[in-house]
Formats: sequence, structure tokens, C-alpha cells
Amino acid sequence: MPHLEGRQSILAALRARQRKFQVILIRHGTHAQGVDEVVATANELGVPVRYVDSRELDSFAHGSSHGGIVAMCSAKPRAAIGDVMERIRSTSEPALLLLLEGVDDARNLGFTLRSAEALGVHAVLIKKHLWDFDETEVARPASGAYERLPLVQIDDLEPLKQLQQLGLQLIGCLANVNRTIYDADFTRPTILAIGGEKRGLSGAVRSICDGFVTIPSRGDASSLSLSHAGAIAMAEAMRQRGKSRTLGQ
Amino acid sequence: MPHLEGRQSILAALRARQRKFQVILIRHGTHAQGVDEVVATANELGVPVRYVDSRELDSFAHGSSHGGIVAMCSAKPRAAIGDVMERIRSTSEPALLLLLEGVDDARNLGFTLRSAEALGVHAVLIKKHLWDFDETEVARPASGAYERLPLVQIDDLEPLKQLQQLGLQLIGCLANVNRTIYDADFTRPTILAIGGEKRGLSGAVRSICDGFVTIPSRGDASSLSLSHAGAIAMAEAMRQRGKSRTLGQ
Repeated sequence: MPHLEGRQSILAALRARQRKFQVILIRHGTHAQGVDEVVATANELGVPVRYVDSRELDSFAHGSSHGGIVAMCSAKPRAAIGDVMERIRSTSEPALLLLLEGVDDARNLGFTLRSAEALGVHAVLIKKHLWDFDETEVARPASGAYERLPLVQIDDLEPLKQLQQLGLQLIGCLANVNRTIYDADFTRPTILAIGGEKRGLSGAVRSICDGFVTIPSRGDASSLSLSHAGAIAMAEAMRQRGKSRTLGQ
Repeated sequence: MPHLEGRQSILAALRARQRKFQVILIRHGTHAQGVDEVVATANELGVPVRYVDSRELDSFAHGSSHGGIVAMCSAKPRAAIGDVMERIRSTSEPALLLLLEGVDDARNLGFTLRSAEALGVHAVLIKKHLWDFDETEVARPASGAYERLPLVQIDDLEPLKQLQQLGLQLIGCLANVNRTIYDADFTRPTILAIGGEKRGLSGAVRSICDGFVTIPSRGDASSLSLSHAGAIAMAEAMRQRGKSRTLGQ
């Protein structure tokens, strides 16, 4: 059964109200201050809380970093592309979506979601095969963003083409192109596409990109990791958007 | 005994020539293409290579991601602050150093070193207690940067004050200050100070900072992780420096 570990992940999930909670397990003797917000929120929502011993708790947990609290709950429902489009149509803010291909592990995905939320991304699109990840492992480093950020599974290029028809530009991040992220116009509605470290962006996605950009870096060093390249590109989009808002005022 | 795992880490360490290698162990049947560069470099440097079975290899390795190759070698020697100062004095390029406080795990440190090298950082300063990390765990995500980038252990504020006397500005990254990374002048010789997620920068380091900057992000989201905040700030330094170089030509 899907479950969540740690105070922050569980609290974010309770508040996002997207999952169905069976029970929250708290280790006897866990410091009240650390969990009272979870308990209060669970009570409000009618989610049962049970106090258990270490051994029982550990039998449900993956690692030792749960901090004495584990929740049994349904998986987070995936967002539909239609919902994301509806949201794009209904807000005046230019859309910023992140498309991820070939993420190599759950932790990196979690960190990327956390950065994406902090840097103003409205939804994250992920290729189908990436959904094999262990949710618990994604949720922890995402620090709540996993619960709050709409995640859309896409199986082919169709949703991307539909978004392009809505006016979004699809910008692929690649190594070794001349145009940099600082040359791109991220104030326009944008899908930023980032590929994994092994293979980069797929040929299929590249074939429909409206443009490519690179992140300037030292040529004699290793390339940036996917999650760090993503953070830098999203921060640049946020910088450009902040500047255009200030100018427009 | 310290050891390294994985083709890329071992190759970077051999090439950096800072460690003393006892032996490199390769699992029988490991694809030659994956390791022949390591074997050639080892032969060149007179490092013995032994072929072993899976069980023997695994007994030396931490995890299962070594890809069939493990090296027994000395720890990477730490750089002295004097060497870093010498290097700063002898190059015309304005220095960019990264100071890390309170990094919470080895993997995040590794990724931060990788970004630091890619984004033009000349050396990384780390508070003493951080040296408890498992080197192997730091080296893998650093993708070679751990071997190439000078790492200096500092015990107190003295080295920072000396660097300030050399003309470097010490800029602390904090949440919730008005000045952003885009307002800072990173074309000047700079030490960029980033604190861990739990406690941020120490009071001691803050007390000698020449200025503070923040990374703009959505207030209702979780904060960025240390390694992602670091990557964004270092990328901004690289952007400003690239621009000033272009203008100067």
C-alpha cells in the first residue's frame, strides 16, 4: 500500500486533500511538538491516528528517516492534461510548465519538483515510464511540493502539441547549442523541456521543440545534473518574469 | 581503507593524480568498453589492476552502483588555504569561492561540488565538522569534480578574513532579505556563502559577511535545497562574469 513518511510529507499531503488516508502511525514517545500539527490536521479531517511501538512503525517504513511518523494512504492522483489546460486558460499569468524526460532516480525527481514549485512552475509533465518510481522516495526530498504541484503523465507528443496550439513555446535544454537560457524569452507561456543525463531529450521531443537553449558552463567540467540544470533554467524564467512584472507596474 | 567506486570517479581520480592508488578491482566479465580507459590510465601510472569475481568486488563496495569497478586508494588530500590564496594572487580572473555550512548529506555535497566546478568556482571551503562524510558517497554524484576541485577545510573565521583582506567580498545567501542575487555584483572577487537547510548560515559567518542576497522564489512554496540554491547563485555569478567579459572585448 502506498504510504508517506515524515512529518512534512504527511502534513503537506493532508493539506493538499488529494489522497485518501487510512491511518497515521506515530511512534510512542515521539516529541509532541514535532507531530501535533499533523495530529490536529488529521483530527480535523477525520483521519485516525494510532500510536505504535518502534518495531511496528519500522515494519511500514522504508528507511530510518521517518522521524517517528508514517501514514497509510492512497497514491496521489495524477493530474489530467485537460485540467492543466483549463488552468492555463483561466489565469492571466503566462504558463510555465516543466517537461522531464529520463530522470534517473526518485530523489532527483523529488528535488526537481521542490525547485519547480519554488520557482513558479504551474505543472510538471513526466513521460510515462518515469512513473515507476517509489512515491515515498520522491515525496521526501520534494518537501511537500509533490503533494501540491500538479503532475501529468504523458504517453506521447499529443499533449505537448495541444499546449503549443494554446500558445506555449516548447524550449528544450541541451548542451552545446549557441543560444543560452539568457537569450530565451521566458516571459512568454513556456514549456521547459529537460532531459536526463544519460540520453538527454528524446528525438521525438526535440523534433517538435520551438527552440533550444543551453546553460553556460565550463567546458572542461562535467555537465550539470538534471535537477540542477532545471533549477538554473527555471530561476532564469522567474527572473525574467519578475523583471517584466516590475516594468509593467 | 578509502576507496572509490564507478568508472567515472576512478578515472577522474587517476587523472587528477592527487591520490595514491593501491589497486583497481574489476569484476570478471565487465564490458571492456566501459573500463578500458581506466585500465589504460592505470597502466600508464603503474597502478595494478586485478580482475575479481562479483562476491569479492561487492565486499569492498558500498552499494550496487559501482558498475563492476572499485579502486583502493588514499583519501584525497585537502587543499591548504595558502594554496588557494596563491592561486587567487597569480590569476587575473576574479576569484569565485564557495563556502558551505551545514550540508546535510554526502550526496548533496557531491552534487554541489559538481555544479560548483561546472559554474566556474575555483575552490570550495567547508567547515571542519563536514569532513565526517563518506568520501565515496561524495565522489559519485560529484562526477569527477570531487577529484579536481580544491577543497579546503576551515576551522574558524580566520581564512575568510584573510581572503577578505585579499579583496574578496563575502556574500551570504539568506532567505528573506530584500537584495537578490541579481542585485549583487558578482564580477568582483567573491566568496559565496551558503548554509544548510536546517540552520542556514552560522551567526559567526553572518557577522563578517559584506552583504546578503536571496534567491527570488514563491513565498508559499518550500525553500530551495542547499545544492539547488547554490547552483542558481553560482550560475548568476557566471552569467554576470560572461557578460562583463563580452563587454570588455
